[in-house]
Amino acid sequence: MASQQFEPPSGTRDFLAADLRQRERVFQAARRVFERYGFEPLQTPAFERLETLTGKYGDEGDKLIFKILKRGAHEASGEADMALRYDLTVPLARVVAAYGSQLPTPYKRYAIGPVWRADRPGKGRFREFTQCDVDVVGSSSPLVEAEVVCAGADALVAMGVEDFTILINSRKALTGLMQVYGVPADRAAGALITLDKLDKQRPADVAAELVEARGLDQGTAEKLVSDVTADDATDRMRAALKDSPEGAEGLAEVDRLLELAGPYVGEGRIRFAPNLVRGLDYYTGAIWEVVAPGLPGSIASGGRYDHLIQAMGGPDVTACGFSIGVERIIGALGAAGDQTDHIDVAVTVMDEAYVTDALGFAQELRRAGWAAEVFLGASRKLGKQLKWAADRRARYALLQGASEHAAEAVTVRDMETGDQERVSVGGLFTALDSKLRM
Amino acid sequence: MASQQFEPPSGTRDFLAADLRQRERVFQAARRVFERYGFEPLQTPAFERLETLTGKYGDEGDKLIFKILKRGAHEASGEADMALRYDLTVPLARVVAAYGSQLPTPYKRYAIGPVWRADRPGKGRFREFTQCDVDVVGSSSPLVEAEVVCAGADALVAMGVEDFTILINSRKALTGLMQVYGVPADRAAGALITLDKLDKQRPADVAAELVEARGLDQGTAEKLVSDVTADDATDRMRAALKDSPEGAEGLAEVDRLLELAGPYVGEGRIRFAPNLVRGLDYYTGAIWEVVAPGLPGSIASGGRYDHLIQAMGGPDVTACGFSIGVERIIGALGAAGDQTDHIDVAVTVMDEAYVTDALGFAQELRRAGWAAEVFLGASRKLGKQLKWAADRRARYALLQGASEHAAEAVTVRDMETGDQERVSVGGLFTALDSKLRM
Repeated sequence: MASQQFEPPSGTRDFLAADLRQRERVFQAARRVFERYGFEPLQTPAFERLETLTGKYGDEGDKLIFKILKRGAHEASGEADMALRYDLTVPLARVVAAYGSQLPTPYKRYAIGPVWRADRPGKGRFREFTQCDVDVVGSSSPLVEAEVVCAGADALVAMGVEDFTILINSRKALTGLMQVYGVPADRAAGALITLDKLDKQRPADVAAELVEARGLDQGTAEKLVSDVTADDATDRMRAALKDSPEGAEGLAEVDRLLELAGPYVGEGRIRFAPNLVRGLDYYTGAIWEVVAPGLPGSIASGGRYDHLIQAMGGPDVTACGFSIGVERIIGALGAAGDQTDHIDVAVTVMDEAYVTDALGFAQELRRAGWAAEVFLGASRKLGKQLKWAADRRARYALLQGASEHAAEAVTVRDMETGDQERVSVGGLFTALDSKLRM
Repeated sequence: MASQQFEPPSGTRDFLAADLRQRERVFQAARRVFERYGFEPLQTPAFERLETLTGKYGDEGDKLIFKILKRGAHEASGEADMALRYDLTVPLARVVAAYGSQLPTPYKRYAIGPVWRADRPGKGRFREFTQCDVDVVGSSSPLVEAEVVCAGADALVAMGVEDFTILINSRKALTGLMQVYGVPADRAAGALITLDKLDKQRPADVAAELVEARGLDQGTAEKLVSDVTADDATDRMRAALKDSPEGAEGLAEVDRLLELAGPYVGEGRIRFAPNLVRGLDYYTGAIWEVVAPGLPGSIASGGRYDHLIQAMGGPDVTACGFSIGVERIIGALGAAGDQTDHIDVAVTVMDEAYVTDALGFAQELRRAGWAAEVFLGASRKLGKQLKWAADRRARYALLQGASEHAAEAVTVRDMETGDQERVSVGGLFTALDSKLRM
C-alpha cells in the first residue's frame, strides 16, 4: 500500500479482481436461489431525498446518515437535500408506495447492493457495505414466512455456509410471555430488551437488571430468567404460553413455520428459541435469527413486520423479510487468494514481426470463449514472458520464435507440467481447444 | 406512478425486474468479453475524498460533483469532506497509485458501475448512470490500442449493437495537420476545437469561426476546411501529413491500429477519420469514437492518454482506454417489457389443507434449479389463481383440488396451450422436469 492519500476513504474498500470475484460468486449464488423462488430483483438509487431517510432509524441511526450538500448557488448554505441510502428497506417502502399497482401481488423482491453508514470503522465494520435482502410485501399467508426462511437457508448453503441454526420466535409469543409472568404491559418492552441480553450476560445479572432498571418484582424476574434459561426452557415456555391467548397465537405461528420450513431447511437447522427477542421493535409476528458456530452474533435475521412500510411513508401493507449478513459471511469464507481465476492461454511475442500472428491466435481463442492474453510488455526475452504467463496463471503459453515462424508452427507449453509440443499454425486452434476442454 | 414524493430523486431511476434484468444482460455480455481478453474487474467505493476529485474535471466538471457533508459535530460547518465519484478514471488513477506493485503489469482492468453528476436531468441524461470502461495501464505497445479496440468492438456486438463504425485518428496527426497548414502552435488547440464542429455545422461557418475566433488567416481556414471535408479527404490528409514528422508519426499510429484491429473488428467497421478531434485534451496518441446509425453523437470512445494518471495524482504511467456509453446503448435497445423473464412452475393452493403439498412440489422443483412459486394470496378460487399464474408468466401451473388430493395426484396445466394432464404425486417431478427441459 502506498501513501495514505491514495487509500480509499476510511471505512470503504477497493476490491481488486480476486476479492471482487469472490464477492460476486457469493452474490450470484444468492441471486440464483432467490430467482428460483420467484423473487424479483430491484435496484434503487444510491441516494434518496433527505426527508425520505430522516426520522426512520431513530436518533442514533439519523446521525449515521451520509448527507449530500446542495449544489450550485445553494452549496454555500451548507444544507443537504439528499442522503445516501442507509438500508434497503426504506427504498423498498418508497417503491411500494410509488409503483403499487404496477408491482406483482404479492411483491416478492430481492435486493443486493451497497448501503452507507457513517459508523466508526472497525474490524468487519464498514461505512460502505453490501446488504442482501429478500422481502414479500402484500401477503399475510403463513406460507410467506416458510418461503422466506427456506429461500434464506438455501441462499446460505449456496454461499458456502452449511453449519447454522435458525432460531425462531414470535413477537406475539413474547407479548404472551410477559402477560403470563405478570409483567405490566408498560414495562414489557423494556423487560424484553433486558431479557435479550441472556446470550451475553449471566442470568443473575439479567434478573437484577429486570428488577432495578425495568421495575419487575424480584420473584417475577427470577422465575422468568430461571424458566427461560432452564435445560427444558422450550417445554416450560410452550406450557406457559398456553395461558395467554396472544402467547398461544404466537406459539402457533412458530409451530406452523417449523412444520412448513423444517423439512426443507434440514434436520436440526431450525428450532424454537423462546428467549430470542431481536432488537428492532417493528416486528409484528414470527421473528428469526441465524447463528453459526465460530461467528459471534447472528449472520442473518428477519421476521414479519406488517406495519413498517406504512410507518416509513408507504401504504399499510403486510410484509415479511430476511436479511443476510453477506459481509460477515464473505469475511468468514477467508481470503480469496487461493481461488484466483486463471486465464486459458498466454500468447508470447518473441519478435515485432510476429505481433499480427500473436493477436490472431488470441482472437481465435477468444471467439471460442477462451480467455487469452497477448504479452504487451516491451521485453522480447523468453524468460520474462514465461514469468508473465505464470503470473497470469495461464494454463498454456504459446511460443513462436524464428524457427517456429519459419516452419509455420507454434510451440504450446503446458504451464503446469512444462511439457512443450510443436503444432502447425493451421492445427493450433483445434489442438488447443481440445486441450483446454480436458 | 403515485405522488411525486415517492418518485426517486430527480435524475435517478428505480429499476424494476424487467429493466434491471435487461441492464444486467448487457453488463454481463460486456464482462464476458472483457474477461476473455484477460481484463480484470475493479470496484472502488461510491465516494472518494473530496480532494481526490476536485480540480480533475475543469471548472464546469467541478460544479457537477455531488459533495458529502461532514458528520457529527462538523455537520454544522456546512463543509464537505467526501464526494460521489464522477467517473471511473480518477478512481483507477488512485488505485494505480495505491497498489502499484500488487497489480499485474500491465494492469488491464474493466469497471462497470454507477457514477454521479449533478447535471440538469433530461432525456437520456441522468444524475446516476453507469459507465463501462476498459483500460490498460503500463504498456506503450501498439498492441494495446488494438486489444482495447477489439475488446470494445466485441463488447458492442455482445451487447446487441451490430451496426457501428469506429472512427480512428491520432492526436499527433492532428498536431501535424496544424503544422502542415501553417496554423501557429499557440492557436492549434483552439482551431481543433472549432474543426471538431464539422459534424454539426456547415463548412463555411466553421471556416468563418476559424478566422474570427481562432485567428487563422482566411486562405488557411478555407483550404483546411475544404480539404478535410472533401470526398477524398482521407487521401488528401494522408498526403498532407507526410510533410510533418509528427503528422507522419500519427498517421503511422492510425495505420498500425487499422492493420492490427481491422481484421477482427470487421470489414467496414473501422476507418481513418482525419477530422475526428475528441473534446478531451488529455489524449496523447491514437483516439477513436464509435458512431452508430440512428444514434446521434457517439456510443463509445477512447484513446491513449499517457500522462493523465500522473496529472490525476498517480504515477507517470502510460495508459489507453475505451469507454462504452452503456446507458445510450440500453436506451437504444428499446423497452425491456417483451423480454420479461418467466417462472417455470406456478403452484396453486386450492385448500389450506394442501399447503404442505404445494410447498413440497415447489421445493422439489427449486432443488433441481427450476423457478417455482407458490400462490401466497388469500383467495382459494381457481380463476384467480390461474390469473396469477398467467401474470407470473408461468410455463406450467399445478392444480390440486379435492379429487386430485384424494387420488394422490396433481393436474399439470400448460399455461400456453391450456392443455391439462393429471399426474400422480409420485411421478410429478419426473413428468414436470422432462416437460420443462423441452
